[in-house]
Amino acid sequence: MGLVVQKYGGSSVADAEGIKRVAKRIVEAKKNGNQVVVVVSAMGDTTDELIDLAQEVSPIPSGREFDMLLTAGERISMALLAMAIKNLGHEAQSFTGSQAGVITDSVHNKARIIDVTPGRIQASIDEGNIAIVAGFQGVSQDKKDITTLGRGGSDTTAVALAAALNADVCEIYTDVDGVFTADPRVVKKARKIDWISFEDMLELASSGSKVLLHRCVEYARRYNIPIHVRSSFSGLQGTWVSNEPQGDQPMEQAIISGVAHDTSEAKVTVVGVPDKPGEAARIFRAIADSEVNIDMVVQNVSAASTGLTDISFTLPKAEGRKAVAALEKTRAAVGFDSLRYDDQIAKISLVGAGMKTNPGVTATFFEALSNADVNIELISTSEIRISVVTRADDVNEAVRAVHTAFGLDSESDEAVVYGGTGR
Amino acid sequence: MGLVVQKYGGSSVADAEGIKRVAKRIVEAKKNGNQVVVVVSAMGDTTDELIDLAQEVSPIPSGREFDMLLTAGERISMALLAMAIKNLGHEAQSFTGSQAGVITDSVHNKARIIDVTPGRIQASIDEGNIAIVAGFQGVSQDKKDITTLGRGGSDTTAVALAAALNADVCEIYTDVDGVFTADPRVVKKARKIDWISFEDMLELASSGSKVLLHRCVEYARRYNIPIHVRSSFSGLQGTWVSNEPQGDQPMEQAIISGVAHDTSEAKVTVVGVPDKPGEAARIFRAIADSEVNIDMVVQNVSAASTGLTDISFTLPKAEGRKAVAALEKTRAAVGFDSLRYDDQIAKISLVGAGMKTNPGVTATFFEALSNADVNIELISTSEIRISVVTRADDVNEAVRAVHTAFGLDSESDEAVVYGGTGR
Repeated sequence: MGLVVQKYGGSSVADAEGIKRVAKRIVEAKKNGNQVVVVVSAMGDTTDELIDLAQEVSPIPSGREFDMLLTAGERISMALLAMAIKNLGHEAQSFTGSQAGVITDSVHNKARIIDVTPGRIQASIDEGNIAIVAGFQGVSQDKKDITTLGRGGSDTTAVALAAALNADVCEIYTDVDGVFTADPRVVKKARKIDWISFEDMLELASSGSKVLLHRCVEYARRYNIPIHVRSSFSGLQGTWVSNEPQGDQPMEQAIISGVAHDTSEAKVTVVGVPDKPGEAARIFRAIADSEVNIDMVVQNVSAASTGLTDISFTLPKAEGRKAVAALEKTRAAVGFDSLRYDDQIAKISLVGAGMKTNPGVTATFFEALSNADVNIELISTSEIRISVVTRADDVNEAVRAVHTAFGLDSESDEAVVYGGTGR
Repeated sequence: MGLVVQKYGGSSVADAEGIKRVAKRIVEAKKNGNQVVVVVSAMGDTTDELIDLAQEVSPIPSGREFDMLLTAGERISMALLAMAIKNLGHEAQSFTGSQAGVITDSVHNKARIIDVTPGRIQASIDEGNIAIVAGFQGVSQDKKDITTLGRGGSDTTAVALAAALNADVCEIYTDVDGVFTADPRVVKKARKIDWISFEDMLELASSGSKVLLHRCVEYARRYNIPIHVRSSFSGLQGTWVSNEPQGDQPMEQAIISGVAHDTSEAKVTVVGVPDKPGEAARIFRAIADSEVNIDMVVQNVSAASTGLTDISFTLPKAEGRKAVAALEKTRAAVGFDSLRYDDQIAKISLVGAGMKTNPGVTATFFEALSNADVNIELISTSEIRISVVTRADDVNEAVRAVHTAFGLDSESDEAVVYGGTGR
């Protein structure tokens, strides 16, 4: 009994059959005595098809119009889902982001939610309806233009609505069974995590785990909304992400939550930077001015003999060219020797709040990599995460070695129940 | 120089090429110094595809959700059109029906426009933009739900916006060159009409001419908005529909505007109705209560010997079953003998304000049919229209005979420039 916000991704509503299957699951939640609000993404490939159409019409589509176009996708899926639910004998009403009160800033294609005023949603569920809300979209506060929230937008819509409605849980339905101790495609013995703290989930998300995006977890943490990530293809319990374990979950958190990896980044090294105040600032101001987001930054002590140091950082491969161009322009001002650009790297991260109080973790991590003959190129740590950069070719072996070393392997081979359709 | 509202139908924006072609035409109007507001329908078959999806999900989709679904169609076409215009170097903004201030009643799937408050559209064009508005859709006054306007909705949107914006003209772009003196598929020598009055156009529309719907013409007449119906595939002048001829058009109206035909109706005859007050009322109250719309009604004098009369009426074939069922229930109360239902009929109508002052028109009409050996089953007239019902098999020959008899044939064979794609 309570208020449940459920979110279904595009692969769960890819066709009429998927929509009918999801409708049944929603009705079950309602029959269990809950008030139910559903956030839905566009069907399967709809968004890609709309993007293709836009590119046929204009090589650089306007942000405002692109958002208007893309939001047609959820409009279709949400209306169909409401129809399918009504066909099962339950009342449902669909709402656009704007109707649901999802107020954003005006940055088209990647708007941020400023406020959620869910008066119409609350009224709809209070009347006994199941409310279906378009994910990924909102309306800008100043101009009242339609906006989209960018990557992970539908998950964020769900969490934001859950917060505004003071929901008991936000269920994120996807095509996998939950969050795993490593990517099951790489580590066959990866285990599904029953519960993980917001902090560990945030670190996993920013280290390459794709099940939940950082942005959505951050929002849930701020408003303390428990997330339940689970498969829309099975009835299994998934992974709970929350401050505290739920129900019969173990109260004590595992030392290590999981191993994440990321091969989408490249490494830039600025070689021979004079080791004096202000140089690093100058470099990263140039990067920031070119609107490139960077990830890890590593600088080691300078060689005493030369007074020069090297600064390395990682960034999305797609932004490599822009960053290098920006840095080249600062070469004279900074006075560095050269730039090295390397996109054949992988980042492997070990995440777990337990490492704070377990001093051997770093050593075990590096030993595991060493035993697997994997060379470490960069190291960076936070309080609950250790990340290393290695050769891209080594990534699978490295992840498996670390996973085993920390006792994360499941007991049986292939114990993993993986997404129903394999998508 | 002025304010032009243009409307493009689905066949004009069926694909990316169509959208780019239409974008060029819109930009031309803008370059000619006009403020331009464009109303656009969904691309080609989009609406049909959405209807198919709805039927896969639910046999009887909810009206509210059906409207939410269908309005995704214009959202796609209007955003793409705005992008295509911007790609030509002109500013464009798209607006949903709701954003454009199209306020309707709450009758889903066939809402009626209550008011148009085009503040955002006016502001957009005053800033120099071309405003693109979704046709066919609005928002309900009471519940703020998305509605659709039903058949001919986009044309009505265009005329309603033109009225609210005090536009100089409403251009309806379609896949034919204008309104013809008869259906060019039936009469090869049909001529394009350069100008036609609102009144004659209303009669043609309600007599089977499909280029403009009655509803849209009625709206234009009430607010005195000149309509220019023309092809989006050619640069030719089309047909002006207005109170008075425009520019160099002939000041004197032709006696006969055109010949329309309609094979979508059926005929019901109630046989042996007691010829006394109240019987007809009882019959048509029963029809009205079953929500059937009827067209022609004909009753002749009763036979003196029996005191019984026959009442015939025509109605859309799709509503025939419902009407007959409703009438069967009144048989005892009315005391009629029997019902005859006939769906193998055609209605042929001659329209022209000139017939008011030309007494020979009716005779010429009937002579033409007689010479073509076409039997007349029902006759009904208004001040500016004569309609007859004949066998469906006779319709093409009848229309051609009447067209020739009134001197409407063009001088050369196949003089008609017909729609670019033949759609």
